[in-house]
Amino acid sequence: MSIALRQHFEEIITLTDAEFDYILSYFTPKKLKKHQFLVQEGDAVTNEYFVVSGLLKAAYTNEAGKEHIIQFAMENWWITDYQAVANQSKANLNIDCMEEVDLLCISFADKNKLCDEFHKIEHFFRIKTGLGYIALQKRILSLLNNDAQSRYEQLLKQYPALFQRVPKSLIASFLGVSRETLSRFSRKNQD
Amino acid sequence: MSIALRQHFEEIITLTDAEFDYILSYFTPKKLKKHQFLVQEGDAVTNEYFVVSGLLKAAYTNEAGKEHIIQFAMENWWITDYQAVANQSKANLNIDCMEEVDLLCISFADKNKLCDEFHKIEHFFRIKTGLGYIALQKRILSLLNNDAQSRYEQLLKQYPALFQRVPKSLIASFLGVSRETLSRFSRKNQD
Repeated sequence: MSIALRQHFEEIITLTDAEFDYILSYFTPKKLKKHQFLVQEGDAVTNEYFVVSGLLKAAYTNEAGKEHIIQFAMENWWITDYQAVANQSKANLNIDCMEEVDLLCISFADKNKLCDEFHKIEHFFRIKTGLGYIALQKRILSLLNNDAQSRYEQLLKQYPALFQRVPKSLIASFLGVSRETLSRFSRKNQD
Repeated sequence: MSIALRQHFEEIITLTDAEFDYILSYFTPKKLKKHQFLVQEGDAVTNEYFVVSGLLKAAYTNEAGKEHIIQFAMENWWITDYQAVANQSKANLNIDCMEEVDLLCISFADKNKLCDEFHKIEHFFRIKTGLGYIALQKRILSLLNNDAQSRYEQLLKQYPALFQRVPKSLIASFLGVSRETLSRFSRKNQD
């Protein structure tokens, strides 16, 4: 499991064996089955999770019971309820497992400690967060432009595997379109 | 002008006078008049800008000529076309001045150099970027939830001054609602 994390860090920085072992000692493995919840609305949120294998989604359920998917996470992605952590409030999101998952879990306190001890870890997370920021700006533009087709193509390009692994109804929810509109896009794409 | 930047850094980190003077030496002041463009679609983008005073907007113009506002920036905010920088592509956005502006300009190469030389500067930008990421997640949720009223209230809370400084039509464009819907919200808010 730790190889995935090391390779992930080494996309951006290099670590000695000793450094990586030390960093890894702050992570705890966590295994969940399909349909289990990692975070439920109202939970205290103190951890961030690195996905070694499997697939999760983070979603907000509105007052009418409709679910809006804010994020999918699969191999080499990070997930938590970031807003709850920043505001030190209870979780607003539900994060559940769409497949069996293997995670590596680190508390925010320990993540900050590692960023403090290793300049290069702080660098790693600055770069990663910056890329995440840009991806969200892109998603906002396509929501404002009401351009579901480009959101569909963006998602297909970014996560081709998602379309094999996620029910179409959830892809539609992520894109903010109806199941019917989504089918139209996928037919177009097969032409 | 430099006092604003120093105070901004010192919300999160502390700097000695010598450190700050060194850091400041990488910034160049830039002054633009109302209606001037800081970045135009198609420009090469190599700089990021700190707003000392004034107000700007970053917007995307779609093929039908409709403008979608991705960001406003006023005092103590940073602005550029981040996606263009990350992809090393030409600007997709137009960034124009809605008031006369005083900016401090730094190239991305120099920002990265400062992050490399000063662990605390890297820390500053990791934290700032993380807060920006959370704000964008919130905006996406409210777009998916089609909850323009909450976007309006969020903006009013985050930037009360914006409502005095920006024409209502542009606030509506940022929120992704019609001018009429916006008027309904502001009437409600005055009740």
